[in-house]
Amino acid sequence: MDFALTIDSTSELPLQQQLYEELRQAILERRLLAGQKMPATRELARSLGISRTTVVLTYDAMTSEGYLEAATGSGTYVARELPDEFLRSQAPGAGHEKKVEVRRRACTQRLSKFGRYLHDNELVGPAVEPEINFALGRPDNDEFPIRQWTQLLNKHCKSRRFSELELPKKSQGYLPLRQAIADYLARARDVNVEAERIIIVNGSQQAVDLVTRVLVEHGDHVGLENPCWFGAQTIFEAQGAKIYPVSVDANGLNVEELRGKRVPDLKLVYVTPSHQFPTGVVMSLPRRLELLDWAEKTDTYVIEDDYDSEYRYEGRPIPALSGLDKSESVIYIGTFSKTLFVSLRLGYLIVPPHLVQTFAHAKWMTDRHSPLLEQQVLADFIAEGHFERHIRRMRNIYEQRRRFAIESLTRHFGDRFKVSGDNAGIHMLVKFQTKLSDDEIVRRAQKEGVLILRTSRIPEEDTAEFIICYGSLPEAKIELGVSKLSSAIGRRS
Amino acid sequence: MDFALTIDSTSELPLQQQLYEELRQAILERRLLAGQKMPATRELARSLGISRTTVVLTYDAMTSEGYLEAATGSGTYVARELPDEFLRSQAPGAGHEKKVEVRRRACTQRLSKFGRYLHDNELVGPAVEPEINFALGRPDNDEFPIRQWTQLLNKHCKSRRFSELELPKKSQGYLPLRQAIADYLARARDVNVEAERIIIVNGSQQAVDLVTRVLVEHGDHVGLENPCWFGAQTIFEAQGAKIYPVSVDANGLNVEELRGKRVPDLKLVYVTPSHQFPTGVVMSLPRRLELLDWAEKTDTYVIEDDYDSEYRYEGRPIPALSGLDKSESVIYIGTFSKTLFVSLRLGYLIVPPHLVQTFAHAKWMTDRHSPLLEQQVLADFIAEGHFERHIRRMRNIYEQRRRFAIESLTRHFGDRFKVSGDNAGIHMLVKFQTKLSDDEIVRRAQKEGVLILRTSRIPEEDTAEFIICYGSLPEAKIELGVSKLSSAIGRRS
Repeated sequence: MDFALTIDSTSELPLQQQLYEELRQAILERRLLAGQKMPATRELARSLGISRTTVVLTYDAMTSEGYLEAATGSGTYVARELPDEFLRSQAPGAGHEKKVEVRRRACTQRLSKFGRYLHDNELVGPAVEPEINFALGRPDNDEFPIRQWTQLLNKHCKSRRFSELELPKKSQGYLPLRQAIADYLARARDVNVEAERIIIVNGSQQAVDLVTRVLVEHGDHVGLENPCWFGAQTIFEAQGAKIYPVSVDANGLNVEELRGKRVPDLKLVYVTPSHQFPTGVVMSLPRRLELLDWAEKTDTYVIEDDYDSEYRYEGRPIPALSGLDKSESVIYIGTFSKTLFVSLRLGYLIVPPHLVQTFAHAKWMTDRHSPLLEQQVLADFIAEGHFERHIRRMRNIYEQRRRFAIESLTRHFGDRFKVSGDNAGIHMLVKFQTKLSDDEIVRRAQKEGVLILRTSRIPEEDTAEFIICYGSLPEAKIELGVSKLSSAIGRRS
Repeated sequence: MDFALTIDSTSELPLQQQLYEELRQAILERRLLAGQKMPATRELARSLGISRTTVVLTYDAMTSEGYLEAATGSGTYVARELPDEFLRSQAPGAGHEKKVEVRRRACTQRLSKFGRYLHDNELVGPAVEPEINFALGRPDNDEFPIRQWTQLLNKHCKSRRFSELELPKKSQGYLPLRQAIADYLARARDVNVEAERIIIVNGSQQAVDLVTRVLVEHGDHVGLENPCWFGAQTIFEAQGAKIYPVSVDANGLNVEELRGKRVPDLKLVYVTPSHQFPTGVVMSLPRRLELLDWAEKTDTYVIEDDYDSEYRYEGRPIPALSGLDKSESVIYIGTFSKTLFVSLRLGYLIVPPHLVQTFAHAKWMTDRHSPLLEQQVLADFIAEGHFERHIRRMRNIYEQRRRFAIESLTRHFGDRFKVSGDNAGIHMLVKFQTKLSDDEIVRRAQKEGVLILRTSRIPEEDTAEFIICYGSLPEAKIELGVSKLSSAIGRRS
């Protein structure tokens, strides 16, 4: 050996690691040359005063990593083509940045159609939290009964039953949770469904996404309410669907617009019958039956997104489409994002019996199953009555906030506004009397620190209709937001 | 009014609900006829001794549900087309069951290609848990430090910071977790990556699924190791990709098989370089650099699934492809399913800068973001050192189990078996000396209560190679399983 190796037996570093680093450096600094024969392990061990095993293991590691090459019967050599040399030759040279830049710009060509849609569209909302956020359709996190929730978390952590969902058959979710949901739906929504038809998903977003993937092919037509929940529309569009908009009147979706020669073949119709988003209209029973009748005759699936049926402040709830469905046409979507908290990411699908296995497979393929611990906690939370207690409590709070918001609007706008839709939910649709364009109103509100959503997705179309989400805001914030809106809209341009 | 209405002011039922039920029954029983004019609200209120508001609200509700019809200026009428009558006429009649049955059988025509793949393939595993499950590639849940985990859960529940991820910009996941992962990767994997490039997903299953959706179009070719992880193959196939298999030798993927005229244009190549699944081979550094070189020249993405690099029992880990990548070609997949527990459903993607926004959008579209609470807990769990302590502890346990499993196989099989692959991971590939077919071995093992996976996905191809997952099994179970395997394979047919 014509080079020095420093092995320090008092060092904290393991001998093998020291030897590895020393040899690697020697090779990289050309003190050991490419193709050069390495000393025999026994010889090197003796010269360094370390065990032969340490040398053997080091040689093995360096061989597997490409620094050394073993020739059967004739010993070990420094590799002819060195990994780090390879690395250096790969080091970014002139023109590298430019090449990467070209590649970046060309990346859309390497994306799927889905990927291109995501690449080309700006799908994110505001990066900065506004002072008053009237666009946030979520419950009030401060009112969530976190104590009970934490107790149940502790209980289930302690029980360590983490492997409940490991068999693939279980991708539908934790059975006691599915049972608790089935029982709740029978009590609260007049929907009688077996737990076998329920699939636990990560919120209604994943529900709509799974439905789209399983049913919709690029180029297919889907029927959507007009106006509709933008989130659903985006998923359908991203998946390549063509949107067929269907108007909404005081009774809900205009089913007659689904008939006629000029209507394309629809793969599905997506509706929010219990509280149409955003208009707030409740679909009447005759209209529901008409829709189901149409679905059966045309062999079309109806997607019922029941996102906030828990909050109805007057009248009796109308039976869900899913409960009325006799021809296995309805796929029902439920969520806990409006009743518990959004970041829980739990919701569920109820699918017709003939689709259960396909959707269970879809969930398995997408992400196996939703996280178990929260499912265990939620199952108990529902079964022990906390869930319905919480809903009852929040229903009062939200009803009061809704009333307060309308009072506040009256104080500031007099009769220059109109609230449409049913007395339900955690948002409302407000139409202002104004000559300002919708965009101008959004801009002016934003300047005042208030975020509101316009209803119309068409930039040039001015409806003066805006969504005001009051659910997560205490009265003082509602009042502040409305007064800011008033100075925003009140000013003449 | 020519019919009796019973309103009981002492009943627990609200007056409005009582009135609703009474009127509904009267309408359904034809005591009130279709088209008949209803009494004026003032009149009815007086006759029943209740407030007029109660009557107005009841009429309103029944109008919105279709039992009554309001004619402007001329009062309220019983609806001409009654919802419940509609319901009855819809009741399943003769031939209904048959119609539904036809519809069920025809349902594949209404599915997307993706849906049809899921419908047509049996993707679930065994429904009954076997006595000894050698097919379960998961860590030992009993060894998980649940106390620390629970403490962190409690801490974050108490802090109630549930709205951290509500703005769409945050679909990439909880920033402190992404930072903790970046720091960990720099320490443990020599991967230097900014938190901005990390996207938190629900385990590596969702990671592969997102990659497929964003990059792969129906009919595209993808390169896969042969043999490979079946889970990835299934996702690619379900998404309509054509599989181009590339063989694996002692240095990993045979990159030269990616070159040549007969190789189709590949959209991506999916590899498991740190511990090839299932062979257990570690991809050598020269091979890694060769792959990256090929990827840059052909403008192809390389998907690096680093599923169990934490468990390496000798030699130094080779730098991850992601750390060596200079041309923004590598998409890295990490998971906590092998280090913490499977039902946590947390993993992450590291994507090149030019793909970050597209993947953030994909996650947002798919299910918004992964559940927050577990992300908060995991961020602390890593930052406070629990994670690496746990890995070090488990590395010893798994290494010992691996050694024990080999000893146990030697006791029962003598030299009639061979373990291939590196000394790493929580599974190993075992090749038995036997004349039995692979299927026969699986069948016989099953009879003994042991589940093992054959390596070859081709039913007729017999390799006598099986995957033995030892990670989650204590020594007694490993011994029992091997002894059962021995009696299964030992017997001559």
